[in-house]
Amino acid sequence: MTIELFELGGPGIGARAADGVNGRRYSTFSWRSRMALAHKGLEYVTRPMQVSDKASIAFSGQTKVPILRDGDQVIADSFKIAEYLERTYPDRPSLFGGATGHSLARFFNSWADRQLIGTLFPSLMLENSRLLAPADAAHIRGQFERGGGKPLEEIAASKEKAIVAFGKLLDPVRSVLRGQPFVSGSGPAYADHILFSVVHWPRITTATPILAADDLVTAWCERMLDQYGGVARQEPVVQ
Amino acid sequence: MTIELFELGGPGIGARAADGVNGRRYSTFSWRSRMALAHKGLEYVTRPMQVSDKASIAFSGQTKVPILRDGDQVIADSFKIAEYLERTYPDRPSLFGGATGHSLARFFNSWADRQLIGTLFPSLMLENSRLLAPADAAHIRGQFERGGGKPLEEIAASKEKAIVAFGKLLDPVRSVLRGQPFVSGSGPAYADHILFSVVHWPRITTATPILAADDLVTAWCERMLDQYGGVARQEPVVQ
Repeated sequence: MTIELFELGGPGIGARAADGVNGRRYSTFSWRSRMALAHKGLEYVTRPMQVSDKASIAFSGQTKVPILRDGDQVIADSFKIAEYLERTYPDRPSLFGGATGHSLARFFNSWADRQLIGTLFPSLMLENSRLLAPADAAHIRGQFERGGGKPLEEIAASKEKAIVAFGKLLDPVRSVLRGQPFVSGSGPAYADHILFSVVHWPRITTATPILAADDLVTAWCERMLDQYGGVARQEPVVQ
Repeated sequence: MTIELFELGGPGIGARAADGVNGRRYSTFSWRSRMALAHKGLEYVTRPMQVSDKASIAFSGQTKVPILRDGDQVIADSFKIAEYLERTYPDRPSLFGGATGHSLARFFNSWADRQLIGTLFPSLMLENSRLLAPADAAHIRGQFERGGGKPLEEIAASKEKAIVAFGKLLDPVRSVLRGQPFVSGSGPAYADHILFSVVHWPRITTATPILAADDLVTAWCERMLDQYGGVARQEPVVQ
């Protein structure tokens, strides 16, 4: 039985412009699962869906992607998907490197979600929404305007400030990358997949440059793009 | 040969008031090494010194404590001390739990130093300096006034704001502690020692409460104080 990854699809851009409504894969959290599946060397098919259409994942009892279906197992939430893959495919390359690494990856996941994403992403959602189909754009706008308490245009106005704050939050990552090529050590593991999803998302959803060309995190991102047969390079970037 | 830990000593308070100039052990970074030594179950003696007196560590070629001397090995820097202990005493309880855990502890260390300590500690240094001998108090004042670009009293004026920001930075830790008793998993490891040093330092150097009684991090701190025969409970708190 082939593993299925349910994730967000959006209108294709660049080389995918002809691919219609599901030409893009732009969900931050799905990229964690994509990289984890690639790390484990597992074959899978993707099942793209629109943000505003929950019917295709009704089977899961969930309303959010990514969702992984592996035979009769259905797992929602990107971190739980990584844990499922680690538990179910222990003979494949490890995502966590043992119990302590697993716990610290859990911390890293929460740090990335609350501090990195929380700081940067809201101000980029206006640009992101412009690439989406109208129903999805409206959905995203409603979600972030409720969360931010003001129009998406006003949230986007603090973009430059958010980019500076985001860059500063990455200092502990740079400190690690001064001594080793990946956050997880000599090779990438799940903490790298988490961070990659956060840095990759602006690449593929906005034209705004987030990191300087000479940033250590930029060089690390290039190394991540080279991993797993260059799977993440196949996603067109916004220019 | 007994392991020696060179660390900061300060005038005793509370039950240690009679212990003279070296009655206290208040260095944040030394507490990481103390907890790591206790975790490994290693015997050691401490060699306290004043901030303003570098003569006693001249042998090391370093100007900062903690410094560990183990036979002919001399190691400076708390993270390098932890790495030395892990490498030299591999049959004792692990500090990192393998290569990935080691890498992620390095990230956690840098996160704690740059974000937690950088946010909270400067505004508490005025109170800390009041507990020190005059020469050390002057040294600390000079160091933080150069760093902050203003008098220690002005830096201390932003204390309430710093405490709120610090509390918010701990959100990813709380997220982890909702599912497990320690940052490192079912038991403590070096990432817990790092965080402990940051939360313990205000306990033993200022009368300012930093965390609410019902904070998950407070409950975790109590569990840390119970570890290793309650070694950290022996240090008197400021009241």
